[in-house]
Amino acid sequence: MNKLEEYLNAHELSEIHPSDIAKILKQLDDAEFASALKLIPKDLIGDVALALPDRYFDDVVENFSVEELRDAVLALESDDQVDFMHELQEVDESVALKVFDTLDEDDKQEIIKLQTYDEDEAGAHMQLEIFTAYKDEIVHDVIKRFADLRREKKIENIQNLFIIGDDNRLLYTVGLDDLLVFDFSKTLIENIEQSEDSFEPKKAEDRENIRDVVHYFEEYDLSVMPIVNAYGILLGRITSDDIYDIINEHATEQMYHLAGVDDDAEEYDEILRAGKKRASWLGINLFTAILASIVIGFFEDTLQSMVALAVLMPIVASMGGNAGTQSLTVVVRQLALGGISKGDAMRIIKKEVLISLMNGFIFAIVMGVVAAVWFEINMLGVVIALSMVINLLMAGLFGAAIPLFLKRVDVDPAIGSTVILTTVTDVVGFFSFLALATYILL
Amino acid sequence: MNKLEEYLNAHELSEIHPSDIAKILKQLDDAEFASALKLIPKDLIGDVALALPDRYFDDVVENFSVEELRDAVLALESDDQVDFMHELQEVDESVALKVFDTLDEDDKQEIIKLQTYDEDEAGAHMQLEIFTAYKDEIVHDVIKRFADLRREKKIENIQNLFIIGDDNRLLYTVGLDDLLVFDFSKTLIENIEQSEDSFEPKKAEDRENIRDVVHYFEEYDLSVMPIVNAYGILLGRITSDDIYDIINEHATEQMYHLAGVDDDAEEYDEILRAGKKRASWLGINLFTAILASIVIGFFEDTLQSMVALAVLMPIVASMGGNAGTQSLTVVVRQLALGGISKGDAMRIIKKEVLISLMNGFIFAIVMGVVAAVWFEINMLGVVIALSMVINLLMAGLFGAAIPLFLKRVDVDPAIGSTVILTTVTDVVGFFSFLALATYILL
Repeated sequence: MNKLEEYLNAHELSEIHPSDIAKILKQLDDAEFASALKLIPKDLIGDVALALPDRYFDDVVENFSVEELRDAVLALESDDQVDFMHELQEVDESVALKVFDTLDEDDKQEIIKLQTYDEDEAGAHMQLEIFTAYKDEIVHDVIKRFADLRREKKIENIQNLFIIGDDNRLLYTVGLDDLLVFDFSKTLIENIEQSEDSFEPKKAEDRENIRDVVHYFEEYDLSVMPIVNAYGILLGRITSDDIYDIINEHATEQMYHLAGVDDDAEEYDEILRAGKKRASWLGINLFTAILASIVIGFFEDTLQSMVALAVLMPIVASMGGNAGTQSLTVVVRQLALGGISKGDAMRIIKKEVLISLMNGFIFAIVMGVVAAVWFEINMLGVVIALSMVINLLMAGLFGAAIPLFLKRVDVDPAIGSTVILTTVTDVVGFFSFLALATYILL
Repeated sequence: MNKLEEYLNAHELSEIHPSDIAKILKQLDDAEFASALKLIPKDLIGDVALALPDRYFDDVVENFSVEELRDAVLALESDDQVDFMHELQEVDESVALKVFDTLDEDDKQEIIKLQTYDEDEAGAHMQLEIFTAYKDEIVHDVIKRFADLRREKKIENIQNLFIIGDDNRLLYTVGLDDLLVFDFSKTLIENIEQSEDSFEPKKAEDRENIRDVVHYFEEYDLSVMPIVNAYGILLGRITSDDIYDIINEHATEQMYHLAGVDDDAEEYDEILRAGKKRASWLGINLFTAILASIVIGFFEDTLQSMVALAVLMPIVASMGGNAGTQSLTVVVRQLALGGISKGDAMRIIKKEVLISLMNGFIFAIVMGVVAAVWFEINMLGVVIALSMVINLLMAGLFGAAIPLFLKRVDVDPAIGSTVILTTVTDVVGFFSFLALATYILL
């Protein structure tokens, strides 16, 4: 008996959670895995597949029939249906098409509707299962209707009542905790008008950028947000669990971009796909490294006459690169978190320049002494100290200015900024050191 | 009339949100800022202060009396009270002490209780305001009691009922949506026993690591989680808005650690504090850069006899550093997100080595040709190509192995891993290139 069987036997159906099944599946070896898949309760297959890392998805597709996959789709909420179909398409387009064909017209329409949204738009992340009530309904009737739908499991995980007018436009959001305070014998609108509280909904439009929506959740401490179209008509909702995933995805994207890695390409276990994307960034880096070498090439005579310079040369560039990356990372991250407002650019640049200049002086002195003692040439210490100050100053300046500039021209400040920065710190580092050496030492 | 006055006049009190006030305050200049502070509705001062970036906190302290600050604290929920007192201590210890002294014994005890938790423990992030019911209470009575507390604004933002036994141990969690389906004339436990659903609470212990708690929220799609002590006694709850903040903080911490930046030191606007922490990482980097220079120093004679080597030398190190950073970033991030399970180490190392080897061959050929043409020495192309393959292989291997090893010995894989990696890629890059040049070219 494998571990999954043990788990399933030990729990009642209502206590079984897809994440727990996924956790157990991940620990099984390939042989056990396929047979364990068959044990998953039918209506949890979709949730388990989505809870597993993407690389397991083709095993799921291989081990289930089109009918089983269709049933898995039907058991999912609308936003998860879209994710499931997306994964299915990535793994096997023809199976995805077959599964899609077996769905009924309503489900097809819902999936198509959600798929029209761009990944960056709020609509792409909403689910269509919501509970709505008309403003003139009696609270008691609303609760009865709610309880019936809940018993039939047609709605789940509801925290709010979305109240609409006759034209389906969203008017109010009422938390279930507010509802319990209402007079059950009156209509919703009567209760709302008598209350001191505000039921004005915090809502977002379907075409709004999902990053802004995430900020609303964070700022207003929301756990659910209704999504409306441009006319104010209620379409769906986004819930806190979506927000956790999106915050994590955005942070991953940002870290990957800073390192020259593409988050989409890394998702699947295809080495070729990930490798190609990484190669394109390495190619740009090679180009800029050659640029730095050309700068060094200007000083071949200087290097020939004092080979100690070749030994010390990488230190200045390395320190500049590191100090610049410190500034860059802080500014990129604070821009994403909203910690830097529009008028803040000069304050940030000043701060970063001051910090890097301060550290520039410290390490200029340290390295100046080390170089002078190591090679027994005092002026060599002066040269490396001066170029250290210059390069760290540039590191702080460009580390702050590059992302601020990219943000201003509406480019993601994380993409490409590291490459631009290290080009600056390499070129300035090598040039300032070798040029100063040429004029001071030779 | 400044912008804040306009906003306050245009909205009813129930519609005013502290985040909106904070957003307006951030746009004001220093002179307007102080006078605008005075306009904030008294019971929102605490929330506004916490919604502003930390650097504004001393302005808040300066502009309010001890009594006003105490009222601000009293209007906050328990977890925010602790945050507020923490900020206050950072800014002005004596004012913090005075404010604390004016609180009544209960509030003091609550703050002290929450302050005993380490920042990494779940207890540090919980709020103590919860709604509990005993299992033998009639549903109708519970709802009435709830509505009374809600009207008095003693509880807010409630989505769940925590049901406890006579010994205060948490037995069940019932969502308000479940409650509406219950038979109001029966007791809670009767309803629970008759239901098919599971009301088994997903709970965490107060001393549990907050990272694990965040994973529970993500895996089980929770928006609230009860926190119990080691005896199962209910203490408080953590809500989704805390989780948004914690996910963001952890991602920031990770990015900063990879770049050699300390997240705590960067929080406040003190240049000296942030600069010192950054200097300590730059110091370690200087040490490793000198190490790389010593390696170069072994080959002074080689460099003397062929200065072209000094020109090309940084390229191999730079490419290794970049390819290694790509691997390192992906592995560190996937470790944090739970995408790498315990048995996965070999799979990950194999994948990263394959990708870096593949890219190593590509750029070996490109750079080999460039070097051979540039300096008109064919064997120089062979030397740089070989060292490129060696260094990128090492980059992939160590980029994956360093964080996996650190994780295994229970050290944060983000801290220090970049410095170790670039030491490897610099030393291997310079050594392989110059050693191969010595043996092949001279």
